[in-house]
Amino acid sequence: MDIERRILQMARAAKDASVQMARQDTQTKNRALMLLADRLLEAAPFLKKENRKDLEAAERAGLSKAMIDRLSLKEATLEGMAKGLKEVAALEDPVGAVVKTWIRPNGLQVARVRIPLGVIGIIYESRPNVTVDAAALCIKAGNAVLLRGGSEAQHSNGALASVITKALQEAGLPGAAVQVIPVRDRKAVLAMLQAEEHLDLIIPRGGEGLIRFVVQNSKIPVLKHYKGVCHVYVDEGADFGMAREICFNAKVQRPGVCNAMETLLVHQAAADAFLPEMAARFTEAGVELRGCPKTRRILPEVKAAREADWPAEYLDLILAVKVVSDMKEAIAHITRYGSSHTEAIVTSDYGRARRFVREVDASVVLVNASTRFNDGGQLGLGAEIGISTSKLHAFGPMGLEELTTTKFVVFGDGQIRTQ
Amino acid sequence: MDIERRILQMARAAKDASVQMARQDTQTKNRALMLLADRLLEAAPFLKKENRKDLEAAERAGLSKAMIDRLSLKEATLEGMAKGLKEVAALEDPVGAVVKTWIRPNGLQVARVRIPLGVIGIIYESRPNVTVDAAALCIKAGNAVLLRGGSEAQHSNGALASVITKALQEAGLPGAAVQVIPVRDRKAVLAMLQAEEHLDLIIPRGGEGLIRFVVQNSKIPVLKHYKGVCHVYVDEGADFGMAREICFNAKVQRPGVCNAMETLLVHQAAADAFLPEMAARFTEAGVELRGCPKTRRILPEVKAAREADWPAEYLDLILAVKVVSDMKEAIAHITRYGSSHTEAIVTSDYGRARRFVREVDASVVLVNASTRFNDGGQLGLGAEIGISTSKLHAFGPMGLEELTTTKFVVFGDGQIRTQ
Repeated sequence: MDIERRILQMARAAKDASVQMARQDTQTKNRALMLLADRLLEAAPFLKKENRKDLEAAERAGLSKAMIDRLSLKEATLEGMAKGLKEVAALEDPVGAVVKTWIRPNGLQVARVRIPLGVIGIIYESRPNVTVDAAALCIKAGNAVLLRGGSEAQHSNGALASVITKALQEAGLPGAAVQVIPVRDRKAVLAMLQAEEHLDLIIPRGGEGLIRFVVQNSKIPVLKHYKGVCHVYVDEGADFGMAREICFNAKVQRPGVCNAMETLLVHQAAADAFLPEMAARFTEAGVELRGCPKTRRILPEVKAAREADWPAEYLDLILAVKVVSDMKEAIAHITRYGSSHTEAIVTSDYGRARRFVREVDASVVLVNASTRFNDGGQLGLGAEIGISTSKLHAFGPMGLEELTTTKFVVFGDGQIRTQ
Repeated sequence: MDIERRILQMARAAKDASVQMARQDTQTKNRALMLLADRLLEAAPFLKKENRKDLEAAERAGLSKAMIDRLSLKEATLEGMAKGLKEVAALEDPVGAVVKTWIRPNGLQVARVRIPLGVIGIIYESRPNVTVDAAALCIKAGNAVLLRGGSEAQHSNGALASVITKALQEAGLPGAAVQVIPVRDRKAVLAMLQAEEHLDLIIPRGGEGLIRFVVQNSKIPVLKHYKGVCHVYVDEGADFGMAREICFNAKVQRPGVCNAMETLLVHQAAADAFLPEMAARFTEAGVELRGCPKTRRILPEVKAAREADWPAEYLDLILAVKVVSDMKEAIAHITRYGSSHTEAIVTSDYGRARRFVREVDASVVLVNASTRFNDGGQLGLGAEIGISTSKLHAFGPMGLEELTTTKFVVFGDGQIRTQ
């Protein structure tokens, strides 16, 4: 069978499964998640055997040690998956909630009721734990999911899928609610992106190239972020001790992720007092600084920033630094170079805190806290399936609720429309 | 200048205007809407003169009387627009509302705050009043909008745009917040659909062909419905008097719109008693019936329905009729042929009402009320900019709130992330 037909068949099966999933009560879904946690741990020898095939291929292909490490299904990885499943089971089920209800003058009762989205396609790279984490959130929100992982992890993902399918069936749910697309071919992704009759949402997770390819080719709505060029603006009169802790945390605690700081903006009245000690701490931690001319007047040893540094997402121990004449210039810089992802201000001024929050266009805007908090778990959503900088449907971290939508339910007593 | 560059320039100006629009308070936006209402009425001679150019071209092109009528800017049309503007001014402003707020264990206060979407592109056919109605909703929700009407209405839309721009400027708002794309070329639409850096949402309104073209070519999220194949299911034991009023209203009151009934489903235990009187009433009103074999056993004079009738959106005085053996068959028929738009049940049974509401996949599901109520105004949203059967972001009629999104605002006291 050709790939397009195969994908369409899987998508159709997912659609059918989604209709059944939408009708399940919370207990049944939770039971399936708990059962899956057990079955994954029991299947450890099988999963590790299949994972070894991917690891050997990765070594043959000369992948970096870091990438091979991310690919590896260790005992701790499996325990992490099982723990994650139990946490998702413990989350509140968003399905069925009445978001709002009101009565019309003609007596009609109108309600907006939360329902599952339907079928979700997730396209991701390398890490096989995404297979289980994403499946768990989709199951809990009553959806079906088509997973398309990277070819480096194909044996691991196939093995995880077979364990998931069996656990779903054992719990009385349709096995087709979670399917892993087993082919390497990009045609498979293209076929998935065209199947708008069967899929309701695509979430791509990976590098900017993958995401741009998905957006360019999808007829199905896509939730995504291209990159996170996050700023911290240190205001005049800020508590410098607090500002240094926040900036250090935002840059150094985990530099390779999308909510790490990439550019530091400092008010010129704060720069002389703030920057030298901050720079020393960064340098000690191995952070390379790249500064604007005003920065280099204070820190002459710092490399000059070029135009390409301002929109850069380093994902590394590199930081661009710019001294601005006021908050207006800081906001203008963020508007021009930011990615609508995460922006923070450190300030002691009430008016500027309010103005920064109102005027900065980002999915998460923080006052006196680290950019690293743009995360579903950290913000209290329970878990996250990704972060969206598209404004439609979800802007920011996406939890269970973002995997649902609402429909209108109208209760009448024979009302008809007269005009 | 070539079209692509021109469109990109307009999109960029809209983006800049949207930043200013997002900061306006409710009073300023309302003042602009009220002022525009006055200015439209004052500009009646100019608007009618420009409209005449479109009407003459339409007559030369041999457009139908109905289409020419829709195109015509009469005194009553202008008064309707002015009234609509005042109604939108009276609606509650969704921007700035705190949807939810909570405190994390580390003391962070997290809030989801409603903000404008940004820049909205609307692509529509013929009726020039959409230009004003859509602009009004976008302005009230703090957005900028690019409008691309049909070429039949180009002079009218251009004239309306110039009145809108002047009124915006007079009210102290950026004129570029509402722009009408003045070119006929499809290249203009294509350029608009690729400008994802500047536009946040596309809403196409028109025939299925236009909408499929937009979905196929857009990199920007699209909210749309392809068609409305709406059903009324008359259950066993329903109040037949009520059922006949609802069915008649759903089919006859305005057959050319997307929330009109296209197929009637009747429980076999109800068919003998229900159908003859219903059919007589429909026939008297000029409705052509097309029945399944069971229907034709009761109503032998009725034409036979073919397979093509079940997915058909007639938008006309034609109705497909099917007798089903139970509600399960009715729901299966709706699942197969429905368009997720509007579905209604007429029943006296508590359990089946609940089950129909839960299991039918449609943006609006009604019990004992006409399908014609799937409308933003009728359901109490105040006004609507369209109806979405895409599940993402909006499912059903879209009012002011659907022209906004939420961002996360986080207030801290120096919190950093430790893991």
